[in-house]
Amino acid sequence: MANSKYEYVKAFEQPDILLPNTWIVVRIDGRGFHKLSDRYAFQKPNDRRALDLMNAAAVEVLRDLPDLAIAYGVSDEYSFVFHPTCELFERRSAKLVTTIVSTFTAHYIYLWSKYFVDTPLQPPYLPSFDGRAVMYPATKNLRDYMSWRQVDCHINNLYNTTFWMMVLRGGMSNTDAEEELKGTVSADKNEILFKRFGINYNNEEEVYKKGSVVYRQYQLEDSKTGPESKAQSQEDAQANVSKTQQEKLRKLRRKAQVVVEHVDIIKDEFWERRPWILSGKPGKLPAEA
Amino acid sequence: MANSKYEYVKAFEQPDILLPNTWIVVRIDGRGFHKLSDRYAFQKPNDRRALDLMNAAAVEVLRDLPDLAIAYGVSDEYSFVFHPTCELFERRSAKLVTTIVSTFTAHYIYLWSKYFVDTPLQPPYLPSFDGRAVMYPATKNLRDYMSWRQVDCHINNLYNTTFWMMVLRGGMSNTDAEEELKGTVSADKNEILFKRFGINYNNEEEVYKKGSVVYRQYQLEDSKTGPESKAQSQEDAQANVSKTQQEKLRKLRRKAQVVVEHVDIIKDEFWERRPWILSGKPGKLPAEA
Amino acid sequence: MANSKYEYVKAFEQPDILLPNTWIVVRIDGRGFHKLSDRYAFQKPNDRRALDLMNAAAVEVLRDLPDLAIAYGVSDEYSFVFHPTCELFERRSAKLVTTIVSTFTAHYIYLWSKYFVDTPLQPPYLPSFDGRAVMYPATKNLRDYMSWRQVDCHINNLYNTTFWMMVLRGGMSNTDAEEELKGTVSADKNEILFKRFGINYNNEEEVYKKGSVVYRQYQLEDSKTGPESKAQSQEDAQANVSKTQQEKLRKLRRKAQVVVEHVDIIKDEFWERRPWILSGKPGKLPAEA
Amino acid sequence: MANSKYEYVKAFEQPDILLPNTWIVVRIDGRGFHKLSDRYAFQKPNDRRALDLMNAAAVEVLRDLPDLAIAYGVSDEYSFVFHPTCELFERRSAKLVTTIVSTFTAHYIYLWSKYFVDTPLQPPYLPSFDGRAVMYPATKNLRDYMSWRQVDCHINNLYNTTFWMMVLRGGMSNTDAEEELKGTVSADKNEILFKRFGINYNNEEEVYKKGSVVYRQYQLEDSKTGPESKAQSQEDAQANVSKTQQEKLRKLRRKAQVVVEHVDIIKDEFWERRPWILSGKPGKLPAEA
Repeated sequence: MANSKYEYVKAFEQPDILLPNTWIVVRIDGRGFHKLSDRYAFQKPNDRRALDLMNAAAVEVLRDLPDLAIAYGVSDEYSFVFHPTCELFERRSAKLVTTIVSTFTAHYIYLWSKYFVDTPLQPPYLPSFDGRAVMYPATKNLRDYMSWRQVDCHINNLYNTTFWMMVLRGGMSNTDAEEELKGTVSADKNEILFKRFGINYNNEEEVYKKGSVVYRQYQLEDSKTGPESKAQSQEDAQANVSKTQQEKLRKLRRKAQVVVEHVDIIKDEFWERRPWILSGKPGKLPAEA
Repeated sequence: MANSKYEYVKAFEQPDILLPNTWIVVRIDGRGFHKLSDRYAFQKPNDRRALDLMNAAAVEVLRDLPDLAIAYGVSDEYSFVFHPTCELFERRSAKLVTTIVSTFTAHYIYLWSKYFVDTPLQPPYLPSFDGRAVMYPATKNLRDYMSWRQVDCHINNLYNTTFWMMVLRGGMSNTDAEEELKGTVSADKNEILFKRFGINYNNEEEVYKKGSVVYRQYQLEDSKTGPESKAQSQEDAQANVSKTQQEKLRKLRRKAQVVVEHVDIIKDEFWERRPWILSGKPGKLPAEA
Repeated sequence: MANSKYEYVKAFEQPDILLPNTWIVVRIDGRGFHKLSDRYAFQKPNDRRALDLMNAAAVEVLRDLPDLAIAYGVSDEYSFVFHPTCELFERRSAKLVTTIVSTFTAHYIYLWSKYFVDTPLQPPYLPSFDGRAVMYPATKNLRDYMSWRQVDCHINNLYNTTFWMMVLRGGMSNTDAEEELKGTVSADKNEILFKRFGINYNNEEEVYKKGSVVYRQYQLEDSKTGPESKAQSQEDAQANVSKTQQEKLRKLRRKAQVVVEHVDIIKDEFWERRPWILSGKPGKLPAEA
Repeated sequence: MANSKYEYVKAFEQPDILLPNTWIVVRIDGRGFHKLSDRYAFQKPNDRRALDLMNAAAVEVLRDLPDLAIAYGVSDEYSFVFHPTCELFERRSAKLVTTIVSTFTAHYIYLWSKYFVDTPLQPPYLPSFDGRAVMYPATKNLRDYMSWRQVDCHINNLYNTTFWMMVLRGGMSNTDAEEELKGTVSADKNEILFKRFGINYNNEEEVYKKGSVVYRQYQLEDSKTGPESKAQSQEDAQANVSKTQQEKLRKLRRKAQVVVEHVDIIKDEFWERRPWILSGKPGKLPAEA
């Protein structure tokens, strides 16, 4: 039985190759996590188990896809970043996004019982994630994207921390707390936390204030060496790395340890000391030091 | 701390809304399942546990997304179909595809231990899936897509059944079996199966020969009533169903039972007796009969 | 001197092939024609020379591109329609749109002096047009698009006719006329025209009230024969017409006369009597009758 | 008569906004110019009238669209370049491309009789152009695109010059000349030109060897000042230039003279001395010197 009669339908598939020499950010978000966090009784304002699980799944994604340069996570979202020179899956958008979403989901579900020891999953209410890809042409745009997410993390966490203190320890209703916080600035919230609850926001855990950065660890470099190579990185990019070279780079990257840190990624220092992230060229393994 | 300085990066997100009034097929494929089936010792030519697990996950996806009209699965692939009138997620491609891929993956991982009782998952080697969306403008194109997949199922299953008989029971090497099958037609393979192994291919299980169709079950209709409404369905489609009506339709669809069948979907009969699939209008619930 | 060092930049070109089996409408609009109509003193509310020039240019576009099924023009806009089976330029969007825009512009500029005998072009203020392509999956959608433009033509012409009568013959200021017409319905405008200026709108010229339809003329058919073949047309479309067949069809179409008419295209009759437009299959040449 | 019943068809228009902060190259090509150059008896290997007409039309396009940074033309093709910060028409691809194609065509047709004094246009065989837009993320990519076109100009012109000398003065048939040139390198062609026809290719006119660069002229700067600002230009680009600022920049640019030059644009010097092209910031007007 020949299949040629129906095969014409393949012509309806449309290409979705992302523009060469652009940074690719694949951002995934928990689907309906507001409801889900109620169902599984996530702690407020932050559930450490949930964040650790997100981070553990993200680490597995980076291990699985050596082409990933860095990832940043906060709350139920995670941004995975491919370098402008990345040629994985010929840069097909749907392929890149679904591979990350599926791999992340698989590990999240598999690892759930390790982090939520006493809270088993209740099918059919399983956690799931959606995602999409965005291109950023200049390294500055990528840096600004990362800064945007980390500033958002800060703004949301300060709000949530204050709100839930007012509700959980201050005994206010959700509506009253919401009402009082309307129009307040950071200083106001800091003051509420300190005056009413004796909390110095600066002493809150970094994972809540800064979110989580996941990347491959090599020997840190001196702050000065970075910017030069950074500026160079994209100008060099000609999408002309051979398949063999790509495979070689992947092998090199697999050797590096994937780490999770809760540090500032807005200032230059983080990027200058880890020039391999923006340059796309693996650094020296710590063991080689 | 205002976030406005970085928020401009949102402007880099590009819309990916699928053309209105087209059938949307989201097809997912197992990632590296050739290797994976070795690791988890899938039985050849077909592993019933693996297929049942695929089907169980697909059923959960249809239960979760009442907008889905039908799905068809074979081997490690599954095609999920949205009706031309579907407005879910404003028809955003990445959102539709990733939601299906993630929900499918979540249930697949969660249900694994139920179907592979003695074969635990071995992280980090977890199953995962990629996916993409394809639009089909005419109902005929959608039907032809479904026929294409089912013909493919038949072709591959006849080949695999013959090949593995020659290897497992005939004692041939993979290369020799491959060599002998080169250029053979269906009749040749049927004869090999019958003469050498006493197997009548027609008696093989339907799930292997036909793949699996998943859809919402209503009262079957007489074959004659279908085509008329089918032809009408797309001409009526004006993408003008209100949000309230959509929500109402979803509720109606949730009441229907999601079934898995292994039947012919190439001929008209399947579609004529289940006109709700192509019309997008829920049928009568069997209980109402 | 080899060019290979720079040729990698070709990889940045992204495909823009329109979905198979959809109607393609290329709509062009005069660029800044409000200002331009002042500069060249177009008559109000309608300048017959300007419309005749638009139509003459459109006729040349249809003569040049036999793949075009029909076109509809009103004011400074024109919609050109390709059939779902059209494979011209592999359905590349930019190629289709720019070819039409450029061919139209060329003839418009070339023919200007024929229609505006006493009004020479004043460079650099030359007329120009922009354009874009839109896909319509079902024949009903295409018909509704055409109806939308013709209803728009009617609404605008009734308004403009009334407005300019009030200004030119009624001696009102633009602002006063605008103010009085705010919120009026068709009946109100008809009454103003009739009571104040003795004009029966129904007697206005058809070219103003109906716009202009351009298509290839074959023997008109009986109203009954149409709908059947119409319904069939798109279901048959499998994008499987060979290059040779396409070329043959083009030759056949070149033999037909391209006509301009000012008739109703909202009701079924126009389409039923000219089934070749929706079917994509050339009719009988009048000479053969 | 309300139009709401049909207006839903507007929802089928899909957005085509080009990625922010990328260089946009709109390249147009003569449609069927091989045939056309025969019809209008273009001189071989180069027709100065045809090139001057192309350049004159390109100058008008740059005058009309102050957002254009530079253009480069060779033979029947022209590339128009928008800066990464360009927000014209909200960066809608079809709008940008068709506006350029139509404006170019309008002037080309209008100016034809000025350049082809004794060769009137023969309708319906009017010249027309197609076009498309390509994005280049890094300034290096844009520079490489421009280099690619100029190298191509050189390669083609050397070939054509040699070929037509062999045919027109050497009396060879087209086929024989083609055959002899197969596999030859630049040096071979230079030798044929010199030995057989006494032509030193270096002395050929620059317009043929280098093509034509069109841009706004400001005071040339010292070669050293350029690269710094160039590197900066794209990193600064945040698509945050206000509409007012854009309009102001347009006015400034309109004051500059649009010039046509036939110079090297592969080496850095051209760009360093004219930093306004890559920076997007107008330079000093010569008059201000």
